[in-house]
Amino acid sequence: MKTSVGEIAALVEGELVRGDAATILTNFAALDHADESCVSFYGNPKYREQLRSTRAGLVLVPEVAVSAPESAALVVVENPVLAFDSIVRLYGVTSPPFEAGVHQTAFVHPDARLDPTAVSIAAKATVAEGAVIGKGTRIGAGAAIGGDVVIGEDCVIAANVTICQGCLVGNRVILHPGVVVGADGFGFEFVEGRHRKIEQLGIVRIGDDVEIGASSTIDRARFGETVIGEGTKIDNQVQIGHNCIIGKHCIVVAQTGISGSTRIGDYVTLAAQCGIAGHLVIADRVTCGGRTGVIASIREPGGTYFGYPARPFKEGRREAMRIKQLGSLFRRVKALESGKAAPGDEATSGGEAE
Amino acid sequence: MKTSVGEIAALVEGELVRGDAATILTNFAALDHADESCVSFYGNPKYREQLRSTRAGLVLVPEVAVSAPESAALVVVENPVLAFDSIVRLYGVTSPPFEAGVHQTAFVHPDARLDPTAVSIAAKATVAEGAVIGKGTRIGAGAAIGGDVVIGEDCVIAANVTICQGCLVGNRVILHPGVVVGADGFGFEFVEGRHRKIEQLGIVRIGDDVEIGASSTIDRARFGETVIGEGTKIDNQVQIGHNCIIGKHCIVVAQTGISGSTRIGDYVTLAAQCGIAGHLVIADRVTCGGRTGVIASIREPGGTYFGYPARPFKEGRREAMRIKQLGSLFRRVKALESGKAAPGDEATSGGEAE
Amino acid sequence: MKTSVGEIAALVEGELVRGDAATILTNFAALDHADESCVSFYGNPKYREQLRSTRAGLVLVPEVAVSAPESAALVVVENPVLAFDSIVRLYGVTSPPFEAGVHQTAFVHPDARLDPTAVSIAAKATVAEGAVIGKGTRIGAGAAIGGDVVIGEDCVIAANVTICQGCLVGNRVILHPGVVVGADGFGFEFVEGRHRKIEQLGIVRIGDDVEIGASSTIDRARFGETVIGEGTKIDNQVQIGHNCIIGKHCIVVAQTGISGSTRIGDYVTLAAQCGIAGHLVIADRVTCGGRTGVIASIREPGGTYFGYPARPFKEGRREAMRIKQLGSLFRRVKALESGKAAPGDEATSGGEAE
Repeated sequence: MKTSVGEIAALVEGELVRGDAATILTNFAALDHADESCVSFYGNPKYREQLRSTRAGLVLVPEVAVSAPESAALVVVENPVLAFDSIVRLYGVTSPPFEAGVHQTAFVHPDARLDPTAVSIAAKATVAEGAVIGKGTRIGAGAAIGGDVVIGEDCVIAANVTICQGCLVGNRVILHPGVVVGADGFGFEFVEGRHRKIEQLGIVRIGDDVEIGASSTIDRARFGETVIGEGTKIDNQVQIGHNCIIGKHCIVVAQTGISGSTRIGDYVTLAAQCGIAGHLVIADRVTCGGRTGVIASIREPGGTYFGYPARPFKEGRREAMRIKQLGSLFRRVKALESGKAAPGDEATSGGEAE
Repeated sequence: MKTSVGEIAALVEGELVRGDAATILTNFAALDHADESCVSFYGNPKYREQLRSTRAGLVLVPEVAVSAPESAALVVVENPVLAFDSIVRLYGVTSPPFEAGVHQTAFVHPDARLDPTAVSIAAKATVAEGAVIGKGTRIGAGAAIGGDVVIGEDCVIAANVTICQGCLVGNRVILHPGVVVGADGFGFEFVEGRHRKIEQLGIVRIGDDVEIGASSTIDRARFGETVIGEGTKIDNQVQIGHNCIIGKHCIVVAQTGISGSTRIGDYVTLAAQCGIAGHLVIADRVTCGGRTGVIASIREPGGTYFGYPARPFKEGRREAMRIKQLGSLFRRVKALESGKAAPGDEATSGGEAE
Repeated sequence: MKTSVGEIAALVEGELVRGDAATILTNFAALDHADESCVSFYGNPKYREQLRSTRAGLVLVPEVAVSAPESAALVVVENPVLAFDSIVRLYGVTSPPFEAGVHQTAFVHPDARLDPTAVSIAAKATVAEGAVIGKGTRIGAGAAIGGDVVIGEDCVIAANVTICQGCLVGNRVILHPGVVVGADGFGFEFVEGRHRKIEQLGIVRIGDDVEIGASSTIDRARFGETVIGEGTKIDNQVQIGHNCIIGKHCIVVAQTGISGSTRIGDYVTLAAQCGIAGHLVIADRVTCGGRTGVIASIREPGGTYFGYPARPFKEGRREAMRIKQLGSLFRRVKALESGKAAPGDEATSGGEAE
């Protein structure tokens, strides 16, 4: 983008109350990330400190009486959040508009089913025999759509995604680059000193409105289906094992792994770097904090868990506090052993942990 | 699949002892994952509870006298596991049969060596100069085989795999989509305020019968070889650093990382999300539990380890138990300080941890 | 490689002081990894034990008076490290030399800007509309360069890399296979029981001399930029969230994840498998040990941190020591309760932890 303080003020129908309308602006950023080339915004009093120290060239503010550096031009608007959003939408980077057609360098098997006037297949993408692509769906450059895969309508399958043989994808699904859907589950029998492969003959079924982040991997079922429920959002580098059933409207944050045959309820949140063991059940609306390791089923809905092994959040926090106080506990025991009490320790830190 | 209770009974040569032969079945699943559209099986008494509460439409059972919901049709067969397996193999999703040939949209360098009547190169795959592909090997859509790479016979190199310059792959190796073999190891020298790249001039050598899961990455050696031993099975999103030597018949579960120059013995099992530091030695038949962090060599073969830093499993468990009992320990010390004994705590939980 | 003991001695201008000049050598390796087919080297007395037990066929040594197995031929050279390095460079696997041109199976949009006589675009690579590729840059097989992407000079963009719409890449940048730059950040609003996507309209900006390992993912900003600073080196399978600002000359080791909007200073080192929460600030020259979990900003430059939650290294180590001594603490408290002191425990292990 290349615009000016005056143009931004006009665009958001705001009033320039301080600063030079001719100042050039080329970017936008949050208050703490902005420099003098940036438009920023102040919409929430909890960012008052950030406003005070921002290096932004222009800040959209809800009233003139705010405390911001002299270097920042100020434009008063009714709702700075919405105003900023409109600027971002105007100048932000968006994918090019949907353009129907099969690129001349893509390969679509003659026995694939798709309407070339209603789908968009990019350069070097491949669509194998028997695959079905719904209308309004985009397939990115180099993506490989396996045989008999069925993809619904209005999906975005990004560049270099792989969807393996027979897997099913709903409508309005977004798969980011490098996602692998339907690689074999990890299953072996140990026979005469060697690991013999257990054939993985099921599929992956992805519900409507699912989004899966870059380089995440969802394994096909040993038999039957690995399921990602409608509306569930999965971040980058997440691993989901064979035969998992992930419920609807879950959030699974980056680098989390879920082992095979685990069943996750609806509205579950797994923060980053969690690990869930196999063959477990996690109830609806459970939340696991970052890096939680779950090794036993959680059957009660709605709780918040933390730690490895996972325990209820409060308990985990109490335990962490006790560990922090271990130094004092060692001192107290030493004092007892030497016949001297250590009342200070006992009265202060000791009390909290118990 | 679309079949019926009666057809399944006939297929497995079993006796329909309860239920309607005309009921339509469209899927198969384990007892706890099945719904009324599914065939399931009961082959092991430890799943008795799952049988009692299953929602399966049909269950293959070893005898008529089992306790299953009225909603489930029952077919008695001699061996329910084998019978179910035969159904899965009949109706399951399998890769299309091997079809020799180089797809017209693949690119094979004229100086690559392969027999186009004995290998299968899919659409948009690339095989660079000097590469050698053994007979019976499949190269998936969009896979990139680097210069001078040598791949043995009967391998499956899936879609969008990358094998870099000079790496060696044995026979019957399976590389799932997104695997990267032979990217540079991570090595830098710090010179005058900048990290200067140390050239990575070795290769990766992958033994016979190795399987590597989706999006795993195996770095080339700084010099010499990074080795994955014969028969070793690696799950998804595993990272193996430069110059590692992984032994034969190991199991490395998802999201585990092994730092550079570490040497792992034969028959080692690393559960999910382990981390092994660099320049270590892990002896044969060692097992590490989920998320174990190994920061010192383990030279004694056959042990089981857990925790971060890794310690023998029993010790790790005892330590975890002691941490759980910290609350009681704090109470006991407080009681001692106030001159009152706390015999209940001491007699019960206190004893176990010591 | 295929050479002999005599040829190596001649190559490095060394003196063969023991062994048969005709012995064939086909590989090179460090002392502890070498077998009889390998050249190795002994340049540092701290590897004396490895020299004593090496199985190498030939060792380059600085003097004749060293203790090495009879099976190893010995060649004396002035500087074994440099001599070995010269062998590695001669026989090691290197990428083929830069060869300008657009491969006939690549797709370059007519409105992309690049000089086909000065760039190297490999087979099946795609370069979308409006992209700009600097001279001396290589684009690997199957790589997908999105619309309006700008890549500087002398970069190596490996096979199957994806760079999404509008992202900016500096000069001399190396992106290893499977890297994804500019997938959408992970942002949703919860509205009427569903997660509604927050559009991600920013870009990723990658500074000069950055290297990013295989299958790492760098998300585009919600608005503005996600930034990887000049000279920063990122290992494999690293995840960097939207709007992160990573400083200059940082080291980020494998499988580390950094959540959105975190700002990392210059010369920061994050060892393997770290996790950094979102919206934090990490000061310059901070080092985090393996698997550190940072959940609060670290504003003091230069410290070393460890643990989850992260704490200063010494404190973390002391805490780990106390946990190891818990068994003894339980025994000491029991002794106090029973009226007997446990002076041995107190005097030995007890003292260290306090």
